[in-house]
Amino acid sequence: MTFKVAVAGASGYAGGEVLRLLADHPQLDVVAAGAHSNAGEYITAVHPHLSAYGDRRFTPTAPEAFADADLVVMTLPHGQSAALAAQLPAGQKIVDLGADHRLENAAEWESYYAGPHAGTWTYGLPELPGQRERIAAADRVAATGCYAVATILALRPLLDAGIASPEDVVVVAASGTSGAGNAPKKNLLASEVSGSISAYKVGAHQHVPEIKQASGAASVSMTPLLAPMPRGILSTVTAKPAAEVTAADVRAALGKAYDGEHFVHVLREGQWPATASVFGTNAVQLQGTVDKDSGRIIVTAAIDNLGKGAAAQVVQCANLMLGLPEAAGLTVNGVAP
Amino acid sequence: MTFKVAVAGASGYAGGEVLRLLADHPQLDVVAAGAHSNAGEYITAVHPHLSAYGDRRFTPTAPEAFADADLVVMTLPHGQSAALAAQLPAGQKIVDLGADHRLENAAEWESYYAGPHAGTWTYGLPELPGQRERIAAADRVAATGCYAVATILALRPLLDAGIASPEDVVVVAASGTSGAGNAPKKNLLASEVSGSISAYKVGAHQHVPEIKQASGAASVSMTPLLAPMPRGILSTVTAKPAAEVTAADVRAALGKAYDGEHFVHVLREGQWPATASVFGTNAVQLQGTVDKDSGRIIVTAAIDNLGKGAAAQVVQCANLMLGLPEAAGLTVNGVAP
Amino acid sequence: MTFKVAVAGASGYAGGEVLRLLADHPQLDVVAAGAHSNAGEYITAVHPHLSAYGDRRFTPTAPEAFADADLVVMTLPHGQSAALAAQLPAGQKIVDLGADHRLENAAEWESYYAGPHAGTWTYGLPELPGQRERIAAADRVAATGCYAVATILALRPLLDAGIASPEDVVVVAASGTSGAGNAPKKNLLASEVSGSISAYKVGAHQHVPEIKQASGAASVSMTPLLAPMPRGILSTVTAKPAAEVTAADVRAALGKAYDGEHFVHVLREGQWPATASVFGTNAVQLQGTVDKDSGRIIVTAAIDNLGKGAAAQVVQCANLMLGLPEAAGLTVNGVAP
Amino acid sequence: MTFKVAVAGASGYAGGEVLRLLADHPQLDVVAAGAHSNAGEYITAVHPHLSAYGDRRFTPTAPEAFADADLVVMTLPHGQSAALAAQLPAGQKIVDLGADHRLENAAEWESYYAGPHAGTWTYGLPELPGQRERIAAADRVAATGCYAVATILALRPLLDAGIASPEDVVVVAASGTSGAGNAPKKNLLASEVSGSISAYKVGAHQHVPEIKQASGAASVSMTPLLAPMPRGILSTVTAKPAAEVTAADVRAALGKAYDGEHFVHVLREGQWPATASVFGTNAVQLQGTVDKDSGRIIVTAAIDNLGKGAAAQVVQCANLMLGLPEAAGLTVNGVAP
Repeated sequence: MTFKVAVAGASGYAGGEVLRLLADHPQLDVVAAGAHSNAGEYITAVHPHLSAYGDRRFTPTAPEAFADADLVVMTLPHGQSAALAAQLPAGQKIVDLGADHRLENAAEWESYYAGPHAGTWTYGLPELPGQRERIAAADRVAATGCYAVATILALRPLLDAGIASPEDVVVVAASGTSGAGNAPKKNLLASEVSGSISAYKVGAHQHVPEIKQASGAASVSMTPLLAPMPRGILSTVTAKPAAEVTAADVRAALGKAYDGEHFVHVLREGQWPATASVFGTNAVQLQGTVDKDSGRIIVTAAIDNLGKGAAAQVVQCANLMLGLPEAAGLTVNGVAP
Repeated sequence: MTFKVAVAGASGYAGGEVLRLLADHPQLDVVAAGAHSNAGEYITAVHPHLSAYGDRRFTPTAPEAFADADLVVMTLPHGQSAALAAQLPAGQKIVDLGADHRLENAAEWESYYAGPHAGTWTYGLPELPGQRERIAAADRVAATGCYAVATILALRPLLDAGIASPEDVVVVAASGTSGAGNAPKKNLLASEVSGSISAYKVGAHQHVPEIKQASGAASVSMTPLLAPMPRGILSTVTAKPAAEVTAADVRAALGKAYDGEHFVHVLREGQWPATASVFGTNAVQLQGTVDKDSGRIIVTAAIDNLGKGAAAQVVQCANLMLGLPEAAGLTVNGVAP
Repeated sequence: MTFKVAVAGASGYAGGEVLRLLADHPQLDVVAAGAHSNAGEYITAVHPHLSAYGDRRFTPTAPEAFADADLVVMTLPHGQSAALAAQLPAGQKIVDLGADHRLENAAEWESYYAGPHAGTWTYGLPELPGQRERIAAADRVAATGCYAVATILALRPLLDAGIASPEDVVVVAASGTSGAGNAPKKNLLASEVSGSISAYKVGAHQHVPEIKQASGAASVSMTPLLAPMPRGILSTVTAKPAAEVTAADVRAALGKAYDGEHFVHVLREGQWPATASVFGTNAVQLQGTVDKDSGRIIVTAAIDNLGKGAAAQVVQCANLMLGLPEAAGLTVNGVAP
Repeated sequence: MTFKVAVAGASGYAGGEVLRLLADHPQLDVVAAGAHSNAGEYITAVHPHLSAYGDRRFTPTAPEAFADADLVVMTLPHGQSAALAAQLPAGQKIVDLGADHRLENAAEWESYYAGPHAGTWTYGLPELPGQRERIAAADRVAATGCYAVATILALRPLLDAGIASPEDVVVVAASGTSGAGNAPKKNLLASEVSGSISAYKVGAHQHVPEIKQASGAASVSMTPLLAPMPRGILSTVTAKPAAEVTAADVRAALGKAYDGEHFVHVLREGQWPATASVFGTNAVQLQGTVDKDSGRIIVTAAIDNLGKGAAAQVVQCANLMLGLPEAAGLTVNGVAP
């Protein structure tokens, strides 16, 4: 059985990755690839790596272009997805990669984003307790932010196990450049980024409320870094121990939380996550320990920001919502080296 | 129907890529991943990106470890594959990614490689005229060298169409670092390669006789470049026009040669191949024109050196040899950006 | 004794590199850094690496801003430098990094550039025979194009020594991204370039007539490549031998041509140029051999496209024009790794 | 007036960078470049970017090779520098880039390093209060660790100003690959590092005691990251506020601490440090703010790990010890892009 999927925002990097995954998905077909300013152009003119699309062209990003679709994926700037969703029929399933419907607290939304809060949808992180079932039952799913995926999956087991304090969590997370999109900007030029690492939105990133909401953390300091690589997020999450805690306790908490999970891998002792290992996948790599000097718990998580951090996560949610095998069309094997 | 495949040389980059492709192949199963010095280790200790292999370990590279296999893939240094092949039963199918069995001319083999010539197997490039059928009928296939794939596919249509001279072909081809393998060497360190491009084996690369044999070229100058990227080959192939020739003639010759080919794509006019577009795939991108000043024909070809240049090509050949759909387990959609 | 220098086009990459070199130059002072759209901004807002400029700001790109200068450096898009030069007093020395005044043949200029030919200035490549003296005596110097520097210095000794034919020279030259400037374009984004190499302006690059003019070549095929690195050009130059020729002949011709030259280094046998080795310098690395199969002569040359290919070359010319030591403020030691 | 300098450990990356800086230093001459296994080889065989060294060769790393030197720089693995220093005459000045003589507390040394503590030398960070004078008066100086430079300079002003708590400082610092040296290792290959970021020595890095000693911090959690770039360290330092604190307070503390310092630059508001901006320099870039959610103070510091983090720092100390201008032979202008 196959289903029809439309992609709104298909000319961006996340949209392109959705198209890539769907091109090789055994049960999902792309019926429309919507793009505002690129409507009418060949898909391969914007995404020259998507050879399977041959002579297909972008459609407008408009409800009528998506009428056929069983499910609509929205990879649009925040604010735009709520507007589009409002025009789609109630029965049409939607996975929104934008931020519009992630937060439960309207005040937090307004504090980190511009404009009014559009309401809350089911949060698209299947590996959270009970969430897989909620997603499977939902018609509208708000996919998780890229930094949030990596950070929540690293942090929540520590809080659920009671070994970390929810106060004063410190996160430093490095992202590849594709997280910043494909609109041309000087600071994203290869000449500028190559050989350079720098921080941005320091102490004020909009994924913080989402991380707190989904992990149970009470306060989170976050510093995002732009790293000289096209893809990948490595989140370093540190938390104060709630009591005496060992590296083995940290590893046990992670292992217990993700026992049986197909996409989340707690590495063997001594191996640490690397973004190259999850390149192109829906996989998450985790490892943890305790700091020798301070006793802080340190967990690092690696994801592909366009994979589990965006498009692959969306496909995972779509699979659940459509009753397909959760891993259909997805891989855990990174394209490395 | 599924078949069993063993990989000899599975701890190298090409071997790892074979394992990656087979992990997600619908009809091929890995029954043994042989590695000399890593035998007994976890596969993920060497290839941390291959999460699907979980707790599986490398076997020795030994015939008895491969006894179960319907087909053996050999990704070994040249010289070693002939020795191993001699120990495998006659009926066991083999695809050899080493150079041992590619050349028909023993003198040429000895001129470019050390040691005696091991004999000639069916050449593993299905897109050459008539070759697909030969591979399907063969038990022993010698897969094509990475530079050779890109160069032959760019060059042969020009010679077959009679628009280029077979004399004085000039090739400059840039490769990512994975082509040099994963044995630690100072000149391959990230610190050395980052931001640097350089030539090596200038005018003396061992893929030249193979290129001549499979393309019909009479003389080929070749300069390989090491480029600061993990994967990809871009081969720039220039040839003297046999007669007055236009860019349209060049494009027509390429288009005719690969009409209907699933994996070889002649790009639209104005688009030029980029290695990122074929990252992780079995695809080949081609584009050609005529030089304004000299009249030389110029064609550039992009492949993934570990994909169509190695492991994906091997899987393509294996599919043909086992009667499976030629594209099973392979993609044309690059993992980009 | 110190001289005053103004830079027109100081907000671009080449202009920034001129500012960098002049900041640490013992005898040249920057009196104005002109920038059209950035006039009035802090220099460090555009060039955050130029800490020495502290609170200094860009001036307009206007003759009156440069009135004080003994010498004006112009790093402007072609067409604009001729217009500006026409407004500067006759006695004011100029080094123009643009293409406007490089070519002697107006027809060739018009064939490769838009608009009318602005006339010919002294060509700014001191290592050509007799050129050092001409530059020292000139008030107006047209600096050499980046690809042209590397290619001419590799090629001309072969023609001067009579060992190579001037017909059918084939050049494939890879450049780092800074050669394309800092105007934001999608194809120059880090996400697009990282891990990717591709060709552009294939067979139609505007540096070809310049290469022919300064080297004596009769026909040149040129394919420029965009490589995933911020700086550097590696030019692979191949030429047909005029007679029987050995690798030693090639090396001897190069060695003889550059004997005593401070900035041009013919490497020891077995060592090949790498762009990392000339990063940040005015140096040129050369090595040559003869192709085993075809007999073609192959020479590769490495430069820093912003160094000897642009700003350092400009400073070298300025030193000569102002009677300073030719190497003042310049280095041959690359910033590597 | 010029002085003679010998370098012990000149075949490594830090040693090579010392050679690079000294080659263009107006008052320091290299009299010996000592290298164990490379003794007798051309310096340019190991460091092909150091063209100025022409036909010079490495000497053994032996006291007699250094007898002429006014000052010896030691860039040796820890343990070896103490052994060598013991053989040098008491009057010969030494700057040791190894860790052997940095720590005051022998127990801390033994906890993080192997072997007995070799004693404590003057700490080579001139920007610490009073330290410039101590270095100028010293014969033996222990230069600062690379991560330590960036972290101490970011942290100490916060503690000195009383705005941050010395408890529970959290540091995540990303380094380029040259910090790991040029001994060939698989995990440092370009194929492995390209496009990948990962953590190592998590919570157990040997620079922690040094950071505490020189900054006054009471507890420090540190996570080092290996970033896909050849050079550069970006240290993200977060500390709990000692009282109510604003971003302006943080910036004021930094500004006050480094007022008049030539090499340390607190950036304008809104600009954040980037490693590319300090490439090849002795400069430090700093910026700070307060986290919106948690109130933590966040400061990021960028240095070149081979520059201010190693070789340039050594030259700065040598300048002070020899009575030369502190900035002689050093720059604040990064080689960018």
